[in-house]
Amino acid sequence: MDIKLLPGERIDELQRNGLRIIQNKKVFSFTMDSVLLSAFVSLTKGDKVVDLGTGTGVLPLLIVGRKQVKEVIGIEIQDLLADMSKRSVELNNINNIQIIKTDLKRIHEKLGHEQYDVVVSNPPYMIPKTGEISTLDAKAVARHEISCNLEDVIFEASKLVKYGGKFAMVHRPERIVDICYLMRHYKLEPKRIRLVQSRPDSTPRILLIEGIKGGKPGLITLPTLIIYEQDGSYTEEVKKIYYT
Amino acid sequence: MDIKLLPGERIDELQRNGLRIIQNKKVFSFTMDSVLLSAFVSLTKGDKVVDLGTGTGVLPLLIVGRKQVKEVIGIEIQDLLADMSKRSVELNNINNIQIIKTDLKRIHEKLGHEQYDVVVSNPPYMIPKTGEISTLDAKAVARHEISCNLEDVIFEASKLVKYGGKFAMVHRPERIVDICYLMRHYKLEPKRIRLVQSRPDSTPRILLIEGIKGGKPGLITLPTLIIYEQDGSYTEEVKKIYYT
Repeated sequence: MDIKLLPGERIDELQRNGLRIIQNKKVFSFTMDSVLLSAFVSLTKGDKVVDLGTGTGVLPLLIVGRKQVKEVIGIEIQDLLADMSKRSVELNNINNIQIIKTDLKRIHEKLGHEQYDVVVSNPPYMIPKTGEISTLDAKAVARHEISCNLEDVIFEASKLVKYGGKFAMVHRPERIVDICYLMRHYKLEPKRIRLVQSRPDSTPRILLIEGIKGGKPGLITLPTLIIYEQDGSYTEEVKKIYYT
Repeated sequence: MDIKLLPGERIDELQRNGLRIIQNKKVFSFTMDSVLLSAFVSLTKGDKVVDLGTGTGVLPLLIVGRKQVKEVIGIEIQDLLADMSKRSVELNNINNIQIIKTDLKRIHEKLGHEQYDVVVSNPPYMIPKTGEISTLDAKAVARHEISCNLEDVIFEASKLVKYGGKFAMVHRPERIVDICYLMRHYKLEPKRIRLVQSRPDSTPRILLIEGIKGGKPGLITLPTLIIYEQDGSYTEEVKKIYYT
């Protein structure tokens, strides 16, 4: 298929199932966080999935190949990124990913109440300081809580997901209190949690968390995932995530 | 000093500052959890500290030597354990630990509102299943939420501690959602958290958490503490906690 690339864009390998993704380093590149979330989330054959804040569409691309999910809808507010994700979906010739360019706030009014099995999100992590950030900067909007905040994401996820359905998110451990508080508040009871750190002695930098709509309290804390061996190569578990 | 030992009791070394503790294996023995908490909690010279559910008094004994705290009050509901702690305090000839045999529920009405710098607790971890546990079994009461639950502990801590004072607790990672939710609810904003696991690849079994009364959201996640080297000996950090 003949996919148009805009100036500054390039096609990168996703290192899974031969998938490729259009990125523009100046605008936004996906990180390991999305790759880890795609491997962490519990999926079942036939699932209908929504990704809140899909960026370049990396989560839909990584998820759609797993467990034969039925469809993945990616929501992205930024024109540039939504457009790139749409072309990446075409590039990979995938027909069960739909990218919608819109604000995720009130998205359940468009997509319907409790119609989805799973909602995933790699939302902006940082709380912006006043006056510091341009709302025109795509990277800034992807990284900072400018167009949506943590509560918006969790609130919408709770509205979208079926009773007994799942919400999985990647975030920073520093926000764990906010995350636990809001997930419980919006009836997405956290059930599985995993910290990720670079090396055995380093500080955890990534938090993976999954909750169940209407679930009872009771959490499983998985072993902390270590990314690198002492020699700088990936650990066996990370290799498995990337290459299988 | 001539300390009376009851049948089944023995004197164990606390491996810190030559301290000793009276224990009865059939009744209750302290665990590494208390040792880790005593090293984790932030203390300042002159602090007034309360330990909610002190058991055999291990936390007051370990804390009183650190940072020249002013006094530690240990609250214990069980006769046998309160009595053992009192004798351990005598045994070590310490005059700034006070053990009070009473229910920790409504303890702030006795000790006063917001009079303390730090509250610590190694509370019962387990939620009892109905009809399973004898309330006469000292071990069961120490381990299960029979005479108090997590909310009682956090509520009382919040009442006891000064604005800007600290609450530090050791618990199970499985309860992290309850803990974060209740600490924030009762204005003890979690500020520092640390998971503890036996080995680099094992599941975290212990959660250390510290909050500040009236603190702003913002959490530091410390590197996961690993207890054992591959050869089964303690890691350097655990050795430091035990032997310094």
